[in-house]
Amino acid sequence: MTTPFVLVERSGPIARVILDRPERRNPLSLQMMREATAAIRELGEDADCRVVVLTGTGPALSAGHELGEMVDRTLDQEREVFDTCVELMESIQEIRQPVIAEVQGHAVAAGCQLVATCDLAVAVDSARFGTPGVNIGLFCSTPMVAVSRNIGRKRALHMLLTGETIDAQTAVDWGLINEAVPADQLRARVDALATGIAGASPLTLKIGKQAFYRQIDLPQDEAYREMAETMATNAVTCDAQEGMTAFLEKRTPEWRGE
Amino acid sequence: MTTPFVLVERSGPIARVILDRPERRNPLSLQMMREATAAIRELGEDADCRVVVLTGTGPALSAGHELGEMVDRTLDQEREVFDTCVELMESIQEIRQPVIAEVQGHAVAAGCQLVATCDLAVAVDSARFGTPGVNIGLFCSTPMVAVSRNIGRKRALHMLLTGETIDAQTAVDWGLINEAVPADQLRARVDALATGIAGASPLTLKIGKQAFYRQIDLPQDEAYREMAETMATNAVTCDAQEGMTAFLEKRTPEWRGE
Amino acid sequence: MTTPFVLVERSGPIARVILDRPERRNPLSLQMMREATAAIRELGEDADCRVVVLTGTGPALSAGHELGEMVDRTLDQEREVFDTCVELMESIQEIRQPVIAEVQGHAVAAGCQLVATCDLAVAVDSARFGTPGVNIGLFCSTPMVAVSRNIGRKRALHMLLTGETIDAQTAVDWGLINEAVPADQLRARVDALATGIAGASPLTLKIGKQAFYRQIDLPQDEAYREMAETMATNAVTCDAQEGMTAFLEKRTPEWRGE
Repeated sequence: MTTPFVLVERSGPIARVILDRPERRNPLSLQMMREATAAIRELGEDADCRVVVLTGTGPALSAGHELGEMVDRTLDQEREVFDTCVELMESIQEIRQPVIAEVQGHAVAAGCQLVATCDLAVAVDSARFGTPGVNIGLFCSTPMVAVSRNIGRKRALHMLLTGETIDAQTAVDWGLINEAVPADQLRARVDALATGIAGASPLTLKIGKQAFYRQIDLPQDEAYREMAETMATNAVTCDAQEGMTAFLEKRTPEWRGE
Repeated sequence: MTTPFVLVERSGPIARVILDRPERRNPLSLQMMREATAAIRELGEDADCRVVVLTGTGPALSAGHELGEMVDRTLDQEREVFDTCVELMESIQEIRQPVIAEVQGHAVAAGCQLVATCDLAVAVDSARFGTPGVNIGLFCSTPMVAVSRNIGRKRALHMLLTGETIDAQTAVDWGLINEAVPADQLRARVDALATGIAGASPLTLKIGKQAFYRQIDLPQDEAYREMAETMATNAVTCDAQEGMTAFLEKRTPEWRGE
Repeated sequence: MTTPFVLVERSGPIARVILDRPERRNPLSLQMMREATAAIRELGEDADCRVVVLTGTGPALSAGHELGEMVDRTLDQEREVFDTCVELMESIQEIRQPVIAEVQGHAVAAGCQLVATCDLAVAVDSARFGTPGVNIGLFCSTPMVAVSRNIGRKRALHMLLTGETIDAQTAVDWGLINEAVPADQLRARVDALATGIAGASPLTLKIGKQAFYRQIDLPQDEAYREMAETMATNAVTCDAQEGMTAFLEKRTPEWRGE
């Protein structure tokens, strides 16, 4: 599957969704967002895909929205941009597979939101992260939903109100990303992480990922009620029974899937 | 505007609200809280004010409530203290301008709550922060609302249950404040931060700050629905159109405001 | 009070609840969980107990659920396991006394959940923490409720999706525990922490702890409404009146209790 703006590369159980307009710093134009959403959703239906990696070509993962599409537009046209953006972000958290951001360059505005939205994120140590919409009169209000749920309030407000970027090590320290590595190790590190996760039961990963986002916004007592039921139904699946038995018998489990 | 307990100093677009009972460590007495709330709200209506700085004179930003006003009182009198306090905290987050805590000394109990409540906070490196109400039989339950929304649960409970204070560097590490600087650099650092923010469109800052607090407590899907609409309506404002156009034309934007 | 799996040791105002099946790494079997819940609730009713310490014997605080009880079971039997587990976790947060996890060894799966659930946690510096259910096909969905409310999303998902453990220093850095100390200092450190807390008014600790969990999941404005009332009613109690008066008179307060 190849499209003008988004490429998909497969390597065994790992699929890379690649934003590929490097000369423009991968702007999240309507076309880019629609192609990315379609690619992610298609992978979400693909039983052979176990982990999705979201990355880009060139100096930036993404510099954010395509401003050219937002000047001299009607309110409904602006709405289309942000609704399409929210749909992309939601697709990342809705699909069954874990999604890892492989941040090969800067991640700014909606590009930073992509990183905050992915389940995991590994970046080159030269990457910078920011929500600088305030500088152009357009506050990063949708990126803020994802960013303020990843890092503390004061830190989120500092990024949002000043528009200043942070470096990769600061992003690690604040919990915006999991790890920063030298550029020449990025792909290998993400592959190792993805390969490790791809060895798990796909059914279990699906149950767990979807449960994570279902519980995270609930009051704790409701979260526990939902998760106790989720875990009990998980426990009677073939894969959990096989996994527990294999553990007790000190052998490697063989996943059957759904 | 000068009042007995709270001073307001203007310097261009930056206004300083100064708690000024240094010999008492700026207790949040009813009068102090009412004057501070009135000053903050008045600045909130002032189109020439772009950033509010909250600071104090003397060795403490504030040592918390005025205990003398809480001994031998009726329940309704106690209620008045805490309702007035909540009103002060809410005024900080409700006004259109970003509010920066310039923490020139210790910030304890409701003083620590002030710091946790401001949008941003810069402190002298000698400042200490704490919620020691437990030591005097009066648990810091209202400060806890702000503090536990800024730092992790275990850290908040440690402060609350032990009453121990933390130093400024720990406050940075935990995300309670943004930065700690030597005393002789505090004002310059806050001025630089405030001046940078004051260069942004006041309309955009208003939209963004109010959006931040509107979305932070919502489930993610509701937050996205609200913020997509907020950002679309932001995008069609004159300042966003000017900001985006200026960016595309590589020139400095000129804000028109509302 | 001694039972087969859970011991309770008293030392003045401090009670230790000890998981005591070291050779099995203190699995949270139904019996273990029921005994622990009963012990915690009984201490919760004991006016002489001021602080509860939760610890274990052997190389692990707990390695999580008893897998042998979860293989070849009906859905209702699985439900019983997780409902019983949730009850144990809730008992820790519901009792009036602060509960400190004294983590003398590894804390894994539901064992890690115990640590995340306690009000405070101090661990040996050799302890490791993890939610490795994904490795055996049974995602740590109930542990995730507690863990994801203690640390950031990306960090929680990394633990959950990879099953990798983290060391004690990382657990401190992420806010999962308060402190890591050498093994030969663990008990003394927890005793010092507990003794400090035990000097506070038990009524105030009860009000504060229960208020913490009541407000933490509420939107901020509702939290403030509740906490203003909580703090006003706290202020008129004898212990708060005594504590404030003693502070103003520069003497040590004498708590009367409820």
